[in-house]
Amino acid sequence: MTTLSASTCRFSAGLPAARRFSQYSLLIYDRRLKTQLGTWPQGFGATYAVKSGETLKSVDAFAGHVTQILKRIKGFPRGATTIVVLGGGSVGDFGGLVASLLWRGVKLVHIPSTWLAAVDSAHGGKTALNVGNLKNQLGSFYPADEVYLVRRLLAGQGSVRAEQGLSEMLKVALVSDATLWRELERSSRATDSLLWSHLPAAINAKMSIVRRDPFEKKGLRKLLNLGHSLGHSLELARGLAHGEAVGWGLLFSLEWSRELGLLKASEHAQIHKLLTARLSYLAGPKPRLSASELRNALLADKKRLQTGQIDFVFLKSVGQGQLRTVGLMECLKEASRQGWIRA
Amino acid sequence: MTTLSASTCRFSAGLPAARRFSQYSLLIYDRRLKTQLGTWPQGFGATYAVKSGETLKSVDAFAGHVTQILKRIKGFPRGATTIVVLGGGSVGDFGGLVASLLWRGVKLVHIPSTWLAAVDSAHGGKTALNVGNLKNQLGSFYPADEVYLVRRLLAGQGSVRAEQGLSEMLKVALVSDATLWRELERSSRATDSLLWSHLPAAINAKMSIVRRDPFEKKGLRKLLNLGHSLGHSLELARGLAHGEAVGWGLLFSLEWSRELGLLKASEHAQIHKLLTARLSYLAGPKPRLSASELRNALLADKKRLQTGQIDFVFLKSVGQGQLRTVGLMECLKEASRQGWIRA
Repeated sequence: MTTLSASTCRFSAGLPAARRFSQYSLLIYDRRLKTQLGTWPQGFGATYAVKSGETLKSVDAFAGHVTQILKRIKGFPRGATTIVVLGGGSVGDFGGLVASLLWRGVKLVHIPSTWLAAVDSAHGGKTALNVGNLKNQLGSFYPADEVYLVRRLLAGQGSVRAEQGLSEMLKVALVSDATLWRELERSSRATDSLLWSHLPAAINAKMSIVRRDPFEKKGLRKLLNLGHSLGHSLELARGLAHGEAVGWGLLFSLEWSRELGLLKASEHAQIHKLLTARLSYLAGPKPRLSASELRNALLADKKRLQTGQIDFVFLKSVGQGQLRTVGLMECLKEASRQGWIRA
Repeated sequence: MTTLSASTCRFSAGLPAARRFSQYSLLIYDRRLKTQLGTWPQGFGATYAVKSGETLKSVDAFAGHVTQILKRIKGFPRGATTIVVLGGGSVGDFGGLVASLLWRGVKLVHIPSTWLAAVDSAHGGKTALNVGNLKNQLGSFYPADEVYLVRRLLAGQGSVRAEQGLSEMLKVALVSDATLWRELERSSRATDSLLWSHLPAAINAKMSIVRRDPFEKKGLRKLLNLGHSLGHSLELARGLAHGEAVGWGLLFSLEWSRELGLLKASEHAQIHKLLTARLSYLAGPKPRLSASELRNALLADKKRLQTGQIDFVFLKSVGQGQLRTVGLMECLKEASRQGWIRA
């Protein structure tokens, strides 16, 4: 397969009417949103409420979920079935995988319910399951036919979740869209409003990279992992939320880029200023790891090579990331120099 | 996704040397072939022996298999990993799915060990798992990068398996390659030799259809299901082997095509003559089903619509199939007329 179709993005104030979809549509949704959704799910041909989070993505639970789902959609015809997935990243990863495998692929619609998913994971087609404590070992590239960005659903999640989404938006701007970065720098909007108004640009910035390397084979798509090496380690070893872990990871990458002379000190200072101004959690104490926690987390990540080499994303300037292979020891040494390692 | 890359087919007398593949290659193989394969599997980076058959394809067993497999390939780098699958249809369906999902897709090589797989299932990229007693509910379109057709592996399976493979070869000729059909008609070769010498043409005939409808969205690819409506029912309800069930199913489709005036009586007679001459199992007593067994089997198949309509493949002439939607009752009535229903 050499191409990956792009999803149609639809921006709206409220939820789309269920009748927009096929009568044979299954809604997979985060059960925590039940009250908020009211009677809206009743418009679907079938519904399946899930508990969001990493346990949803466990391959051990997959057979049970699929067996339940097939019972609910009994009699749905293959060609006309649509799966609508409403939730955050874990629900999207799970629901997308189900849609990609059911009858070798049915129509898929994503309605992200978190800023993080709206900015990042609902776009580009990655689906995923975990195997044991190894994240995202199984999955597919299966872009949604449509992605609905619903302001009423996204707004009002609170500043913590908004800042998690903003972390990914700042990341994608840093890696591939200097114009978006300058706009974010100049804006005085509050976080929710900032996210909503720049959502189309952030999605475009991500997709401009995805289009050139849809199956992550050329290294280009890996640029979107800026901040994710330390980020995933903090998630895994310290249980930080993905968005916050990435924010901290950005600080690590940027400082390393500066230290190596890839990124000018003045530009580093400007970037650092915006990150710390916009992401209030960065004012807290730096999360630290033991050297062995960091080492194990870096090696557990599927992006690591057997040889102890790591694909690491540096920043050369705003809008220009650079992928380099670095040694595991080199990375640990730099983490120690920057004070991420606790004794 | 709009395209599906074609597999490179390699025809050879013996097994390819394991060193042809990446050092990070996992061999998934049918454990019944262990003795026959000798020390050959030892050349691979890792091996995983499976018990072939429908239980291998159960989604309930999938998490266990994947957990085992990930342990065996620990440290394999994502970009350089190859899965080599050696076995018949069930092993290919399972191994292909694993390859399509592992790290969102690794390189895949098929080495079919049965004529049925060599003629049909190793080509075109369909992978599959069963959910409960519903077959092939989950799967993907994931063509192998390479398919090795190994004469030493295929020859000497015995006439029963050879005729199962020949049933699919005759089917694909009927549906899309009149030249191949005439060649099969004229040849006096024994079955093994007939299969080997016409294998390239049969694969081409299948792929010429697959290329025009890779994801089975236009109905065209469904032409390859000639004989499969009754065939799958006989498999499900009577436990017949796939190849034999399809042979009986061909008789049903052809007779119905003649009865409807789609297929000339003279051509029907000629086709019937070759089928019964070449497929010795057709000389046995006609397998029969109860009306309710046939009804349930037809409805359980994912190709059926909720409305009780069936996509049925007829034959207009040699090399020209035709897909028509027929009512479930119509199909049962015709089966009864032809004597497939037992009291």
